Amino acid sequence: KDGTRVAPFAGHPTLLSAPARVMDPEVPDFSGLDVALIGMPMDMGVSNRPGARFGPRALRAIERIGPYNHVLDCLPVGDLRIADTGDVPFRSRFALEDSHADVERWITHVVEAGAVPLSVGGDHSISHPILRALGRDRPVGMIHIDAHCDTSGPFDGTRFHHGGPFRNAVLDGVLDPARTIQIGIRGSSEYLWEFSTASGMTVVHAEEITEAGLPGLIRRARDVVGAGPTYLSFDIDSLDPAFAPGTGTPEVGGLSTREALALLRGLKGLSLVGADIVEVAPQYDATTNTAQAGGQVLFELASLMCFSPAIASTGVGR
Amino acid sequence: KDGTRVAPFAGHPTLLSAPARVMDPEVPDFSGLDVALIGMPMDMGVSNRPGARFGPRALRAIERIGPYNHVLDCLPVGDLRIADTGDVPFRSRFALEDSHADVERWITHVVEAGAVPLSVGGDHSISHPILRALGRDRPVGMIHIDAHCDTSGPFDGTRFHHGGPFRNAVLDGVLDPARTIQIGIRGSSEYLWEFSTASGMTVVHAEEITEAGLPGLIRRARDVVGAGPTYLSFDIDSLDPAFAPGTGTPEVGGLSTREALALLRGLKGLSLVGADIVEVAPQYDATTNTAQAGGQVLFELASLMCFSPAIASTGVGR
Amino acid sequence: KDGTRVAPFAGHPTLLSAPARVMDPEVPDFSGLDVALIGMPMDMGVSNRPGARFGPRALRAIERIGPYNHVLDCLPVGDLRIADTGDVPFRSRFALEDSHADVERWITHVVEAGAVPLSVGGDHSISHPILRALGRDRPVGMIHIDAHCDTSGPFDGTRFHHGGPFRNAVLDGVLDPARTIQIGIRGSSEYLWEFSTASGMTVVHAEEITEAGLPGLIRRARDVVGAGPTYLSFDIDSLDPAFAPGTGTPEVGGLSTREALALLRGLKGLSLVGADIVEVAPQYDATTNTAQAGGQVLFELASLMCFSPAIASTGVGR
Amino acid sequence: KDGTRVAPFAGHPTLLSAPARVMDPEVPDFSGLDVALIGMPMDMGVSNRPGARFGPRALRAIERIGPYNHVLDCLPVGDLRIADTGDVPFRSRFALEDSHADVERWITHVVEAGAVPLSVGGDHSISHPILRALGRDRPVGMIHIDAHCDTSGPFDGTRFHHGGPFRNAVLDGVLDPARTIQIGIRGSSEYLWEFSTASGMTVVHAEEITEAGLPGLIRRARDVVGAGPTYLSFDIDSLDPAFAPGTGTPEVGGLSTREALALLRGLKGLSLVGADIVEVAPQYDATTNTAQAGGQVLFELASLMCFSPAIASTGVGR
Amino acid sequence: KDGTRVAPFAGHPTLLSAPARVMDPEVPDFSGLDVALIGMPMDMGVSNRPGARFGPRALRAIERIGPYNHVLDCLPVGDLRIADTGDVPFRSRFALEDSHADVERWITHVVEAGAVPLSVGGDHSISHPILRALGRDRPVGMIHIDAHCDTSGPFDGTRFHHGGPFRNAVLDGVLDPARTIQIGIRGSSEYLWEFSTASGMTVVHAEEITEAGLPGLIRRARDVVGAGPTYLSFDIDSLDPAFAPGTGTPEVGGLSTREALALLRGLKGLSLVGADIVEVAPQYDATTNTAQAGGQVLFELASLMCFSPAIASTGVGR
Amino acid sequence: KDGTRVAPFAGHPTLLSAPARVMDPEVPDFSGLDVALIGMPMDMGVSNRPGARFGPRALRAIERIGPYNHVLDCLPVGDLRIADTGDVPFRSRFALEDSHADVERWITHVVEAGAVPLSVGGDHSISHPILRALGRDRPVGMIHIDAHCDTSGPFDGTRFHHGGPFRNAVLDGVLDPARTIQIGIRGSSEYLWEFSTASGMTVVHAEEITEAGLPGLIRRARDVVGAGPTYLSFDIDSLDPAFAPGTGTPEVGGLSTREALALLRGLKGLSLVGADIVEVAPQYDATTNTAQAGGQVLFELASLMCFSPAIASTGVGR
Ligand SMILES: [Mn+2]
Ligand SMILES: [Mn+2]
Ligand SMILES: [Mn+2]
Ligand SMILES: [Mn+2]
Ligand SMILES: [Mn+2]
Ligand SMILES: [Mn+2]
Ligand SMILES: [Mn+2]
Ligand SMILES: [Mn+2]
Ligand SMILES: [Mn+2]
Ligand SMILES: [Mn+2]
Ligand SMILES: [Mn+2]
Ligand SMILES: [Mn+2]
Repeated sequence: KDGTRVAPFAGHPTLLSAPARVMDPEVPDFSGLDVALIGMPMDMGVSNRPGARFGPRALRAIERIGPYNHVLDCLPVGDLRIADTGDVPFRSRFALEDSHADVERWITHVVEAGAVPLSVGGDHSISHPILRALGRDRPVGMIHIDAHCDTSGPFDGTRFHHGGPFRNAVLDGVLDPARTIQIGIRGSSEYLWEFSTASGMTVVHAEEITEAGLPGLIRRARDVVGAGPTYLSFDIDSLDPAFAPGTGTPEVGGLSTREALALLRGLKGLSLVGADIVEVAPQYDATTNTAQAGGQVLFELASLMCFSPAIASTGVGR
Repeated sequence: KDGTRVAPFAGHPTLLSAPARVMDPEVPDFSGLDVALIGMPMDMGVSNRPGARFGPRALRAIERIGPYNHVLDCLPVGDLRIADTGDVPFRSRFALEDSHADVERWITHVVEAGAVPLSVGGDHSISHPILRALGRDRPVGMIHIDAHCDTSGPFDGTRFHHGGPFRNAVLDGVLDPARTIQIGIRGSSEYLWEFSTASGMTVVHAEEITEAGLPGLIRRARDVVGAGPTYLSFDIDSLDPAFAPGTGTPEVGGLSTREALALLRGLKGLSLVGADIVEVAPQYDATTNTAQAGGQVLFELASLMCFSPAIASTGVGR
Repeated sequence: KDGTRVAPFAGHPTLLSAPARVMDPEVPDFSGLDVALIGMPMDMGVSNRPGARFGPRALRAIERIGPYNHVLDCLPVGDLRIADTGDVPFRSRFALEDSHADVERWITHVVEAGAVPLSVGGDHSISHPILRALGRDRPVGMIHIDAHCDTSGPFDGTRFHHGGPFRNAVLDGVLDPARTIQIGIRGSSEYLWEFSTASGMTVVHAEEITEAGLPGLIRRARDVVGAGPTYLSFDIDSLDPAFAPGTGTPEVGGLSTREALALLRGLKGLSLVGADIVEVAPQYDATTNTAQAGGQVLFELASLMCFSPAIASTGVGR
Repeated sequence: KDGTRVAPFAGHPTLLSAPARVMDPEVPDFSGLDVALIGMPMDMGVSNRPGARFGPRALRAIERIGPYNHVLDCLPVGDLRIADTGDVPFRSRFALEDSHADVERWITHVVEAGAVPLSVGGDHSISHPILRALGRDRPVGMIHIDAHCDTSGPFDGTRFHHGGPFRNAVLDGVLDPARTIQIGIRGSSEYLWEFSTASGMTVVHAEEITEAGLPGLIRRARDVVGAGPTYLSFDIDSLDPAFAPGTGTPEVGGLSTREALALLRGLKGLSLVGADIVEVAPQYDATTNTAQAGGQVLFELASLMCFSPAIASTGVGR
Repeated sequence: KDGTRVAPFAGHPTLLSAPARVMDPEVPDFSGLDVALIGMPMDMGVSNRPGARFGPRALRAIERIGPYNHVLDCLPVGDLRIADTGDVPFRSRFALEDSHADVERWITHVVEAGAVPLSVGGDHSISHPILRALGRDRPVGMIHIDAHCDTSGPFDGTRFHHGGPFRNAVLDGVLDPARTIQIGIRGSSEYLWEFSTASGMTVVHAEEITEAGLPGLIRRARDVVGAGPTYLSFDIDSLDPAFAPGTGTPEVGGLSTREALALLRGLKGLSLVGADIVEVAPQYDATTNTAQAGGQVLFELASLMCFSPAIASTGVGR
Repeated sequence: KDGTRVAPFAGHPTLLSAPARVMDPEVPDFSGLDVALIGMPMDMGVSNRPGARFGPRALRAIERIGPYNHVLDCLPVGDLRIADTGDVPFRSRFALEDSHADVERWITHVVEAGAVPLSVGGDHSISHPILRALGRDRPVGMIHIDAHCDTSGPFDGTRFHHGGPFRNAVLDGVLDPARTIQIGIRGSSEYLWEFSTASGMTVVHAEEITEAGLPGLIRRARDVVGAGPTYLSFDIDSLDPAFAPGTGTPEVGGLSTREALALLRGLKGLSLVGADIVEVAPQYDATTNTAQAGGQVLFELASLMCFSPAIASTGVGR
């Protein structure tokens, strides 16, 4: 403790200051990893302000995330076999649907190597191909924290925009709506999200949430997903713009970071098979607060992986 | 739903994306409108940081406000006959008192046409001439959400500054202090606002407000104003600067947007005869959060108009 | 002069404070206009930082552009029949190539109505479909001011990105490379632009430009395009980032605004059949300098139209 | 009240708009003061983002702090003999440990003159030499509001960094750990702060704090420090970065300003012998929110001094 | 040289780090001063973006201006008897014309004490009352560096706006147009400034200025004003917005700071009887560049005073 | 050319997008490299605004630097054996002089491996230990581009601050003042730099520089250093703050980027044995312009290495 510590502003920046592992775009090697940290710098699915393509870069650059989670009592970069495996090698920065195929191929490699993907968006449309890779054999449940349900149908000629990944995933049979809870919902597009309730998802609006009600909400979320394989998707716009201005479709009236952290930490022990943090757009983040919050969420997601029965090496599932 | 939607960043910007109606400055035509959206780009009444003259422009520019209010279940720009009628044509950008006369003349036109004014400041001094036009025949009640009472007397040679509109309105007999509640009060100028309590207004300080106490506060507000004609004035500095930094006299320790939205939505059914959102100063709004919050407040105000018995076409009052 | 002037921060914002004309997306009416100001909020062609979709909004919002050009001695919004005709109605915010078709259709309407299009991007890829509409009958010449030649070939699976519009236009036979000059070229992608020289364009690099050499450069530009129909395309990244930081692919070592204005003003009397100002991305424009520069360039372009023989009503061409 | 008031943006800026008193660096004269406001523009102790050396300048510049505290009912700059006595005259901007000696010497002058020091950092390492001067005769108790315990040991070759002042103070016998409470603790360095609990300090983590729980927390804090001489140290990073982005080691999940004000105001009547507000770094404060919050905290600290039995002239202690 | 230097970020901030002299608003004492530095935090005369009321505060806060001018070879704060005498005590922040009277009264005190006023705006309208005080006995000449002539007539009901001080001064007989040169003129309001040429002022437009042409321009300026008493007025918007974005009516195409410094330094030995630097509005100055440039201009102005025959103690005039 | 290109915002960020080489802090391996890119995140030597410790991180993050230099006609990352070797492993973030020892040790490793160091600061004090490593056997010449001479003596108790590296280097016998030219000098500290002229350095002030005079200046610089081993040190504050606001001691009146690039490119063929780019402080860089300029300068420095006879593998020196 009294020697030299590496300064937070030193060195090649990586996600969570995890070791970098450079991948061959054709033959990536995810072997030996419990958790693969993966950047997905793609924002062609946005409906309003673009910029989330710089999200992975923003989260790599933010300093002082981790190492120790004193609430969950774990040290994810030490306890897990984890690496910053770089970004999905997209074939094109101009082709939304091809990018989704690239994500699905890449995550399939991760899954086949026995690792759990922890992805950094990019816009929220990336969750659809991730779920296609994860839910191929059996639909997964999901805890989805967001200002938006992201279950709207096609418009402007496509259904692959960032407003619809979870409708797509249900229709593809890779997401189980009965085991899905959406938390933090608000804004003026409720009429677009009837698929959520029609398909059986549990929807918790922002106006129902209070700090005092968090323990009940956590219980409810745990009840919805149960012990089965579960995905966790965190859209940074679930936070109020006061806490996370750097995002493309901000909605006032959202969560505080203290509430979000409490919520995430309440999910310890779920059988998480993957997770993502999406929609960080640093162009709108004059204070770096959003990157800071996004980095901390990524850290909490990695911390939860230390307790996921889905990860063999943690010993939890044995 | 699966065709083309107009992108939020496209087209001539208007308040709430309502249709624009261009007015003749001499003979404005507000006929056929339930609600007239009106900009008041005037900030000569400020006591500290100027800039709210750019407030209407900031609220026109902000994207993705509305269309649907899922809490109140209304679609204000569809349900109401509403238009962005442009800005009050001020005779001078150098004459505070003349500008007040211009506001009063303009709002009188609105009232005479049977429309309800929904104004976007500008500094808070504009509420005084608005109230003069609205309360001409009978004093109105008011729900006033602000960090400041704005009932101080003259200083620096005038009583028409933004610190005194409601003292002026009471003294002019257009505002009923017994039917007035001021919510969110804080800061270091309490000694200037004795008029509030002396005249019989109800004053609720920020330090009395908690998220858990909001239902009680809403009941109290509804009790104070009752069923009579009521004005609603929302100073963006009622929000904590974390949520709304872009304003001229910020005061830490204020409301969150989630609290403010809950408060506003709790006022459904009041007999609103007008409303305003004031003091948005985009020069201090590095993240556009303040414009976003101000736009959302404007949307909530318009939503409340859908349920105001004072608006004939809503059918509520019949 | 001693009455009231409309304040620059008042009213519905339009390009150059020109009158707004609202268009039917299906049957637009450009009749009676000399010059149609048109927004093109589309940035799917960018190779790096997105955001130019907010360019038209940024140029509408900027205050104090015009009315009088004392160097060219004209008052474009008074001298010309000109209107802010709104934005191209794009069918989709997710489809680059469809957007180009939308632009081409829209500009064809403009041309058929006898008006000259003055477009505000959006990314530079929009110039290709504009040129397709303008050069349909006969290839046009071009003065192109930019840090980049924008004549590179396909990559990432498309040739419709913002790095290639002028190669595309030449290959489509709508742009005459022998009558094309590119000014301000720099950066690290020279190897991608061999098409420029191979096709016979005149390329003037930034490092060849000095303030003292501007008169010669103006003569050279006039010689290249001659008296034939000419397009003028101004990429804001031709300016040094010190003058225009708000753009997606900044390149240090560029023009000052004083140089750019001198260059543009030196083009008086050319037979301009259209022009654009592109690549303003306000997310990166902390000072609004870029919008200010872009707005001024738009004003200079409109001013040049007062002297273009291609515009009948100017009387110049008669 | 109806004459001229000095505008908040006028005049030579001072802390709390208190009168300036210029000191001789060799023979400072603090006589006749109850409270000495002192800047400490020193940030050599920071572990991450530097910049707090500009903290005193930021707090002098912020406008509209005070004069009246309506919650505590006092007017500190009027009720107390108080002055902005300028900054500690540091011998070097390159020598951390010498700077600590300079602080200790300076505060010793303050103490010997019978005044109470109210210091504005600068980084948190300054609290150690302040406590050395204040606790020389008898260790003081402390209420410490911070995201970090600041009780870690030496690293990078020194123990005088901003992560360790309170461990140092305990080891020097000037701070009584049994009478110390640390509030707001969070982040990923818990493993570095075992000294806090080992020495007997009371540690309250951020995740234990709720708005509803504040009264209990205040009681607990008052119990810990009791009636003895007490120091109050407020690190601005105790606030959530949404409320105070301008600091060097932000930690999401912190206090709101409303909570912090309530907490501070709950400490009325404690026997405060000194206080500080530290770690305001305006380079990261795009909205000036942090300076605003820091200025308000300084005002609350001064207000508490009006009720401290340790200050003779208040009459409270007599 | 090898002892301690006061750090640029330390201490009570003053203009040019000159000693502060606190004035009695009723009976100010300017005796014994060669040069009085005076803040004029008043921006009621602006026609567009307000904010210059924070100009004096911005110039006090900027660090590292002076002490030595190696081009002019002088040390103004050492060579001159100079002090930061605080701000003009305005009677009202709401009354433009009264504020002008306040300025005139204040500067008359300065003049009567035998000192030369060096003023920091505030908007440019302050130059009119300054000239009224300075030119009372005999009209002065002027070197005026600005993007705008500021000789337009009344509009919006007043002639005391910041667009007209020099027309006012000529009509009041305190400014000699034949001995006046205006440098850097541009923008779109030329038609408002015919008074300049009609009255005989020399107008030099920005488009006539080149770096190579500066020596000739300096000669021309010296010729226009000659050896008589001369005022120097520097509007920060003379600089291009790239160099000074923080101002209310920016105009692209302006001077670089290198050009402005060369121009000012070329005026050594003129008989300056006063000078000002105006229109710094820090709200628009995200980089502090404008305050930096404004502070440096103030330093150059003070340096020129070391060589003005109008200042007795310099020995130049003897 | 028509396949996929790696997007500029993708992947682990490195200096110049060069391959990363991870070093053992104890036994670094620089073998096989022509040029070692090295970060030096240390800013303890600054005299004013800190922050340059984030310089290496800022230059790694900036996108779109390189690959091809069309003026010098080279592709440095392809033509040279070059890698981003990470940062100097500093033993302490609190010890200025120890950090210098760490730099010297590290650069000695580089030199002994036969590589040329290309360093990214950090503050300018790092150049002193670099020169100690490079000039051990024989003093080197230097082209130094800066606003400041950085030859002042000790103050505040040390001579190792960023204002004195080149005085230190001369006194240590590792820098030959007769072969040293300093370009861009300005500001108010000339009286501190008499060592420059006294020791025989050539000093070129900013006010002597014009765009037209650059060819002569380049010749002069080449004459001063001749064919001997030469170091090139580029302080980003040599640029005018309009071009590079993100630095700690900005000085208005500096170089444009176009001038700086011309100057650097004029140095082709010099026998460069090392170079640095220092003083980028991203906290003050609201537009990222400074990082952009710094990245481009780094690219030009690498390009010059392609032509340095001191680098064996270039073939130039053989
Ligand atoms: Mn989402
Ligand atoms: Mn969302
Ligand atoms: Mn108010
Ligand atoms: Mn208020
Ligand atoms: Mn282009
Ligand atoms: Mn370009
Ligand atoms: Mn601390
Ligand atoms: Mn802390
Ligand atoms: Mn002016
Ligand atoms: Mn001007
Ligand atoms: Mn230097
Ligand atoms: Mn320097």
